[in-house]
Amino acid sequence: MVKCIAIVLSGCGVYDGTEIHEASAVLVHLSRAGAKVQMFAPDVDQMHVVNHCEGKPTAEKRNVLQESARIARGDVSDLTKLDITAFDALVIPGGFGVAKNLSDWAVKGKEYTVQPQVEKLIKGFHGVGKPLAMCCISPVLAARALPGCEITVGQDSECERWPYAQTATTMTELGCKHVNKNVGEVHVDVKNKLVTTSAFMCNAPIHEVFDGSRG
Amino acid sequence: MVKCIAIVLSGCGVYDGTEIHEASAVLVHLSRAGAKVQMFAPDVDQMHVVNHCEGKPTAEKRNVLQESARIARGDVSDLTKLDITAFDALVIPGGFGVAKNLSDWAVKGKEYTVQPQVEKLIKGFHGVGKPLAMCCISPVLAARALPGCEITVGQDSECERWPYAQTATTMTELGCKHVNKNVGEVHVDVKNKLVTTSAFMCNAPIHEVFDGSRG
Repeated sequence: MVKCIAIVLSGCGVYDGTEIHEASAVLVHLSRAGAKVQMFAPDVDQMHVVNHCEGKPTAEKRNVLQESARIARGDVSDLTKLDITAFDALVIPGGFGVAKNLSDWAVKGKEYTVQPQVEKLIKGFHGVGKPLAMCCISPVLAARALPGCEITVGQDSECERWPYAQTATTMTELGCKHVNKNVGEVHVDVKNKLVTTSAFMCNAPIHEVFDGSRG
Repeated sequence: MVKCIAIVLSGCGVYDGTEIHEASAVLVHLSRAGAKVQMFAPDVDQMHVVNHCEGKPTAEKRNVLQESARIARGDVSDLTKLDITAFDALVIPGGFGVAKNLSDWAVKGKEYTVQPQVEKLIKGFHGVGKPLAMCCISPVLAARALPGCEITVGQDSECERWPYAQTATTMTELGCKHVNKNVGEVHVDVKNKLVTTSAFMCNAPIHEVFDGSRG
């Protein structure tokens, strides 16, 4: 049986969209495993557009679906068309797009909410016992949608290698169980069928992020 | 000795920039091999901006260097600063950006010219005996800069799997030796130290493109 996997994108580029190399790694691993994938993204304006040379917002407007199509080579659908019954699992790569376009984590931190359509999908896949996989910052979506779930966003002690370790602490404060894992590892929350890995939450060489996304 | 590799990008997205998954594959393979990479792109406007959902140009303006920074996670330099003496090899991933921003192949076909800075770099690396690697449509740059070189852009007989096979014929007309190769293979022009692979010139699953880029 060929597995059908839905992938949710949030733009194209680490600072305002999906992290490109995480998405690419997910696509390579799923392709090698013989899975059929379909990509989705919300048809809305990005929270903002970041000049990736300077790391600063510009005055431009861009659409999340259209920019996600750069990663999807044109083959991406409006998120509102995602029919859970047609898929075996849901995968959400990371990047600040998750924190800006799929939730407001980037702006509100611990007081964040998940974009309603995304929250409904996570609860929907979870409700019928279908697996969820998230990497980098995406596990914060699960933390809100599935209270008490187990996740990893890497390590909970900040250092040069783990600059976003505070995220792990916040996840714990929200009632999740955070499990420290290295970049090449995943954590599997067996009860919730939720697989998470830290990816670029870690300042690691790109091939280690690639390997971690195989989980 | 750690190898230092210069990678030239041409934007971000298959239809108007660098093909994202080819660039990502190159970065993963070079990282695993322990190479040090530095990315470069021209600081010029893109030929145009394509809405990747519709495949059609828009009225927007975008800068090649700034968009390339999405792939490079911010760490990309102006192409004019590329010092050949600091690198062991030059790699150019594909995508229509090569045919639009690094040359005018997309507009002029067989009568194309290569952007002068790019041509100078290819001749420069070649002139001091340093290897060059190009995939997808990028070998057309070598075909112009290094007359008579041997390349592959995949297969020279058009079919659903090889929609751009005409490119191979044109390369032959320009005096190159075109060598038919499958997507998982590379051709090595030993005399010119030029390595080429077809990548997304082939309608292949993404993991086959990933594997081909390892060469």
